[in-house]
Order: sequence, then C-alpha cells, then structure tokens
Amino acid sequence: MEKLNPFFQPKSVAVIGASRNPTKSGYVVLENFVKFGFKGRVYPINPEAGEILGVKAYPSVKEVPEEIDLAVIVLSAPAVPKVMLDCAEKHVKCAVIISGGFGEVGGEGAKREREIKEIIKKSGVRVIGPNCMGVVDTATKVNTMFLPAQHYSRPERGNIGFISQSGAFGLTMIDYLASEGIGISKFASYGNKIDVDESELLKYFSQDPETKVILMYIEAIDDGKKFIEVAKKVTKLKPVIGLKAGRTAAGSKAVISHTGALSGAFSIYKGAFSQAGIIPADTVQELVDIGKAFSYQPYAKGNRTAIITGGGGYGVLASDACETMGLQVASLGDTTIKNMRMSFPPHYVVINPVDLTGDASEGDYKTALALTLEDQNVDGVIMIILFQVPRLEETIIDAISETIHRLHDKPVIVSSIGGEHTKKMVRKMEARKIPVYPTPERAVKVMAALVEYGKYVSETTLSALK
Amino acid sequence: MEKLNPFFQPKSVAVIGASRNPTKSGYVVLENFVKFGFKGRVYPINPEAGEILGVKAYPSVKEVPEEIDLAVIVLSAPAVPKVMLDCAEKHVKCAVIISGGFGEVGGEGAKREREIKEIIKKSGVRVIGPNCMGVVDTATKVNTMFLPAQHYSRPERGNIGFISQSGAFGLTMIDYLASEGIGISKFASYGNKIDVDESELLKYFSQDPETKVILMYIEAIDDGKKFIEVAKKVTKLKPVIGLKAGRTAAGSKAVISHTGALSGAFSIYKGAFSQAGIIPADTVQELVDIGKAFSYQPYAKGNRTAIITGGGGYGVLASDACETMGLQVASLGDTTIKNMRMSFPPHYVVINPVDLTGDASEGDYKTALALTLEDQNVDGVIMIILFQVPRLEETIIDAISETIHRLHDKPVIVSSIGGEHTKKMVRKMEARKIPVYPTPERAVKVMAALVEYGKYVSETTLSALK
Repeated sequence: MEKLNPFFQPKSVAVIGASRNPTKSGYVVLENFVKFGFKGRVYPINPEAGEILGVKAYPSVKEVPEEIDLAVIVLSAPAVPKVMLDCAEKHVKCAVIISGGFGEVGGEGAKREREIKEIIKKSGVRVIGPNCMGVVDTATKVNTMFLPAQHYSRPERGNIGFISQSGAFGLTMIDYLASEGIGISKFASYGNKIDVDESELLKYFSQDPETKVILMYIEAIDDGKKFIEVAKKVTKLKPVIGLKAGRTAAGSKAVISHTGALSGAFSIYKGAFSQAGIIPADTVQELVDIGKAFSYQPYAKGNRTAIITGGGGYGVLASDACETMGLQVASLGDTTIKNMRMSFPPHYVVINPVDLTGDASEGDYKTALALTLEDQNVDGVIMIILFQVPRLEETIIDAISETIHRLHDKPVIVSSIGGEHTKKMVRKMEARKIPVYPTPERAVKVMAALVEYGKYVSETTLSALK
Repeated sequence: MEKLNPFFQPKSVAVIGASRNPTKSGYVVLENFVKFGFKGRVYPINPEAGEILGVKAYPSVKEVPEEIDLAVIVLSAPAVPKVMLDCAEKHVKCAVIISGGFGEVGGEGAKREREIKEIIKKSGVRVIGPNCMGVVDTATKVNTMFLPAQHYSRPERGNIGFISQSGAFGLTMIDYLASEGIGISKFASYGNKIDVDESELLKYFSQDPETKVILMYIEAIDDGKKFIEVAKKVTKLKPVIGLKAGRTAAGSKAVISHTGALSGAFSIYKGAFSQAGIIPADTVQELVDIGKAFSYQPYAKGNRTAIITGGGGYGVLASDACETMGLQVASLGDTTIKNMRMSFPPHYVVINPVDLTGDASEGDYKTALALTLEDQNVDGVIMIILFQVPRLEETIIDAISETIHRLHDKPVIVSSIGGEHTKKMVRKMEARKIPVYPTPERAVKVMAALVEYGKYVSETTLSALK
C-alpha cells in the first residue's frame, strides 16, 4: 500500500510536458504545483524551455538531479511510451498519465497502451491512467487536474475520498463540492486503469486517516472477485457509496463507446455491492447527498426517525418519504411529549411529525431537537426549518449546532428550501457541519443511507462476534 | 369564473387588521399593496390608527367611501366572524382570511368556521382560506403573504400558476422559484377551503392567459368527482403537475394532525390523476423541476431522445436514466451522423449519446444541437454541458439559445453541474428560458414528463376526432 503514497504525498514531482503557454494543460498542471501551496520540489520537463513559472526546466526527467516520486505526463499519446521509458530508467516511483489516445481509441492507441504495460511490468513504476484527470490531495496540495483555474472551484480540505473512473464526472463533482463548501480528502480518477485500479485505490483510501467516507463512480470492473474482497474489508471500516453507470442496456452501450469496456449486467453489480456492503446510489444527486451526510454526521443505529417541522405540509411529505424509504416515523416517548406540551403553545403539534407552525422560534426548534435527540425511541432526527417565517432569526444556527454537537451519537439532517435568505442560512449551517438538503425527500433518502450503513455495521460486528 | 377576478385583479383592497407595527402581519400585508406597484386603491382598516404607511385608515370596512373588491383579513380568529359580517354588509366581493384557528384546531375554531360559512352562504362573499397564505398575482402585484420582506424573495413575473393547499409549502416554493429566476403568474394557497376550493382555482387558472403550466400541492380533496371533471378539461388546455402529500399510512396520519382532513388512499388519487391527465410529481424536486421545463419549453411529441455530452460518463448516466424512465435513446439518422462525422474531429463519438469530449467547443455543441434537432428520428434533446473544460466560453449560451429558439417545436433540456463558474453560466442560460438541471437524471425525468404530456395531448386529441 505504501507504494501508492508517492501519488498523494510526493516529495518531488516532474511535470513532463510542462508548457509556457497558459492555455495548455502542461502549464495548468505545473501551476497547480507551483502556486497553490505544494511543499515538495517541482521540476518542469520540457526540452525547449529554460524556465517555466520561475522554475528551472529540464529537457528530460533523467536529467533531474534528484529522485522523482511522481511524474505527471501531459504529452500527447504518441510521445508517452518514450517518456515512460525515461521514467523507468530514472526509477520514478509513480506516474500519472493524463493523456488520452490509448486503449479507448483502439488501433495505434491500444498498441501504445500495451507498450506502456510492458514498461510497467519490467520497471515497477506504478501508474494511474492513462486517459484520466489523475489525483488530488487537499492536505499535500497535489492536484493534477488540467482545467483553467477560472473554470472551476479548487477543492477544499475535508474527509470525503472520491474515486472516479470518469475524469469528466470526477472534475464536475469536485468543482460542485468545492463551491458548496464540502471538503474532500483525496480524489483519484483512474481512466483506463492500465495499472492501479479501483480495488487498490479503495484499499488505499480506507487506510487514509484523512478519509471518513468514500464515494465511487464505476463504469466497469475487470476483476470483480478482487473488488468484492477488498470492498468487504473496507466497508467495515468506512462507508462506501457507489454509483454504477451502465446499469441498463442503453447505458451499457454508451459505456462501450465511452471506454471500450464491457460494463456487465447490473444485476451482478447490484449483488456485488450488496455482498460488499457498498451503499448504492441510484443517481448523481444521491451520491453527493449521501456523501455529505456521512462526512458531517454519524450513522444511525436504527430507523426510528423523528421529524421536526415549521410547516405541517412538510411534515406530511417527510412522513410519506420515510415510509416509502423504509424508515419508521418514530413514536415519541411519553416524557418527550409531556415536556414539549409544557414548553410549547397549545397549537403546536407534539406528536411525530412535530409541527412548530409558522410561529416557531429559535428556542422552539432547539427544544424540540434536544428532546427528540434524548428520546430513546428515536434513532435520528430530520429537521425541516422554514427560514421565511417572522420569528426565526439567524441565531438559530448556533443554537441547534450546539445541540447537535453535544449529542453526537444520533444523526441530524436538515431540510430547508427557499430564496436568498434561506440559501445564506443553509451555507452557515453547512459551515458548522450540519448537512442540509432542499427537499424533505432528499433529506429522508440520506437518513435511509445512514440507517442502512448502521444496520450493516451492526450485522457484520455481530457476525464477527459469533 | 369572473367571480374570482377580484382576488387577483381588485380595484380596491381593504386590509382588515392593518397594523403600524412592522413586525406584525397586518403591517407586512398592507406594505405589499402600498410599496410594490399595486395600482388599485388600498384601505387600511384599524379602529385606532389614523394613518398607516401614509395611507388613511378607517375604523371599519363599512366606513370606506367606495366599493371594496378584496378584503384581506389578518385579525386573530375570534375577531373574524364579526368583520366578515361587516364585509357582507358592505357587499365586499372577495375576502382572503389569512388567520388560523378555525376548523383545523377543532372546538371553538370549528364553531367559528361554521359561523363564517353561514355568512358566506347568505351574502355571497367569495372567500379563500382561512388558515392560508392567500394569493399572489405578479401582473397586478396583489400579494397577501405576510412574511418579512428580508426573509423571502419577492416572486417575479412568469407563466407558472401555483395552487397550494399548504401555505407554508407554497411560500417556500415561491421564495425558491423567485431566487432561481423562475417567474410565476398567480399563486393561491387555500388552506381550510371554506368556500373557494382547488377545483375552482384550477378552472380559473386554466382560463388565465398569463398561465402556461399549473402546479398543485394537494393534501386532501373533498369532492373528488368534481375535481376530476374540472381537471380533465383543464389538462387538455394546459399541463397540470400534481404533488399529493399523504400518500402513505404515515403521511395520511400526518395530514390529520396538520389539517384534520382525511387524505384518502393514494391509489384513489393515483387513479384520479391518471384519469384527469395530471402529471404526478413524486417529490418536491420533481414538482418544481417539471414546472420549470413546461414554463420554458414545448412538450415532446415522442420519446426518442438525443443526448449530447462533453463527458462520456455523463452520456452513460443519461442513457441509463432514459431507459429507466421509459425514454428511447434515439437512433440518429444517417445524415445526422454523416454531418457530424464531417464536422467533428475523429475522436468525438457521433452516435447517440454524442460525446464531444473535453475538447468540445461552443461551435461543436451548437452543431450537434442543430443537427439532432433537425433529425426526424429525434423528439427532444438533452445537452450535458461541462463548463469546466478549457475551450468552452460563455458565448456558447447565445449560440445555443439562438438554435433552441429557432427550432422551437422540440424541447431542449440542459444539465450542468459545477461550482461558481458553472452556476453563473446556468443562471445566464435560465435567463434565456433554457431549463437547466444539475444532474442528468433530473434532466431526463423532466423530459419524461414533457413526453408524457405530449402523449396525453395526442391521445385526447385523437379520441376527440373519433
């Protein structure tokens, strides 16, 4: 496993194909290492340039006067086999091949891919790619994504590990997560997976102390048995959420024209996910929604869910969603109901869903939250906060944040939808690690995933005890 | 039907319970009529105030020296029967009763509701409410929502009509739509529907020239037969999207504690929706997503969908979603494929899904869009635009907007997800009436609704011709 360390924590990086032209990938990748806090040494490799971005360039990786942990290759495909030979000669530890034009295009490309495989076999250089976005590590500031800085939001530090077969999918997600203030620990897009594959990355991420939850986008897995074996171990340590693309006949056909791979029948993947304890995401939305919840909150130890709302209609919608997704609308304990009855005006509804009505104040939400969290009949709480109502002020955020973090063994999921004012409040809640979703159904779906993982953990722990 | 006109186009409005205290609903509602462009006359009614917000107040509606089209009542429940008698005496045409504390609380409240019903019966005053947010008309600037201006975004003018049994649900949606730049024509929240109900509002909205599509949030319908009869006629003129809350046992139970109503079995509603041609939304997200699509785009005349993407993975995900939701991934015509092959570099994929790869430029997206829209094998187009890639500039928005509006008989739905840059681009596209959704699955779901309505229209037209 330490063999993958140089991808994420390199002491020295060579950017092979570094360019002086700011519109080229070779410039953007070099800039990532030079300008954004990476602490190791950086070597631009370009036969014609003396200096790029103020850094001395070398005509070949072989001429760099120190060991190279990581080579990032941004040359066009035909030039790659030659520089891979250079890397092998130099005993470069790891290489990310960004370039496309290999197995996925067939013909000459496939031939080049075989050549590189041969070099890997002989030299032991570890390779991610080709045809990928490469890797990101928000702790060490490694970032091989070649997108213009003004076109995407730079990832922030957090605890989500993200493994994506598709580079394009990965980059849009990273961009989206960053702009929503959701941090990631590590990202790897592995493309044609000529060497390092999803199983190895999954294992590596599972041992990464910065990573709390792992998201995966998968089109096709070659060695299913190995993957299940690895995933089974990983999911006992950390939740893994998987989005499988190519689940239908139409999707599988699209996979073939995308990567040339056979995606395999979905029923097989479904079985594999279930066997391995991977939580399946049916949509892109679910993947990021569920990822955020695991990033910010503990899993649930049961499915008995309390709903607290400022609008009765939302209580109805959340109850519908709970039943549809296998959650139980919890029967609140007598003490809870009694205490709410004493604290609240008579027109509040104090059975579940608890309806604080349009008169709800900050204190009311806080009281209802504290009481339901303390209730032994409740495993998790969904709060639907309507920031539009007159009596609710911004100070509610500190109030509920404190309550959530004091009683942290049960997950709390918030749902709030609205305009500018609500959006501002949502950003403030998320900055305090309270996961917020615009609709009640998305909040409930996420709670169902926290419950599913809790059940899996408890079952695997029990079976280990037998 | 003209009887409902004074709710939305009143020449004169009395705000009964108008207040000088800016934290009170009676102030906010009056302010709505005084400060935001309402062209009619406004009369604050308050026995103690000489003038509010610069407008002369009257101690009773009876003392106003002209006819009153609309009375908005924001007094506490016990005071309402008396002022309703005043309204009757004054021959007020319509009244919105905002106040809660009637049938939904039982006991004294139910008694008051019966009293008001008696007054309505005798006087013929038309009433919306009680226990509601009332009405909004973005053309006439009628707005009875009592929320503090800094807590919500004021609705913009548009063509979505929105009917909501729940006031809280309605207000959050209005707020959300406004901040997303999605305009509405009219909004009505009818609460306890003591007089005007969902069927009457639906009929009224169907005849409103400002309204192109109607969204409904429904908890319980008393007269199902009447509703189906009305809806059947309406859906032949305009699409109606319905979200039924209280679909499960847990949800129905929550409806009872919310409004005291019996929501009825969901199977009945499902049948009724289908019989009436109402497009069912399963979630809040679907309700607004589908509403936006109908607001901006024509419906689809078939289910053969072209997918254009800048990332192969997204093509796979969209294909999966198409098959799952009953859409056909269209087989593009030979001419289309030939023309794309001539226009594009060889590594672009020119079968459906069309993959323009990370090299996609503005011109490539535009060419692919024009060719697929012209293809007789295509009924609608889903474009997944990745704004992160280097060659894509903002000018693409004008380019595709022009193409979409030139060939306007087929719907085009866009999906784009990302950070600040992408979000800026999305806002610009939506300002040009191009509906954009963050995930491919949401875009496909919306296309499926456009297809469903197209099928319904064609079937009902055919059956009318028989």
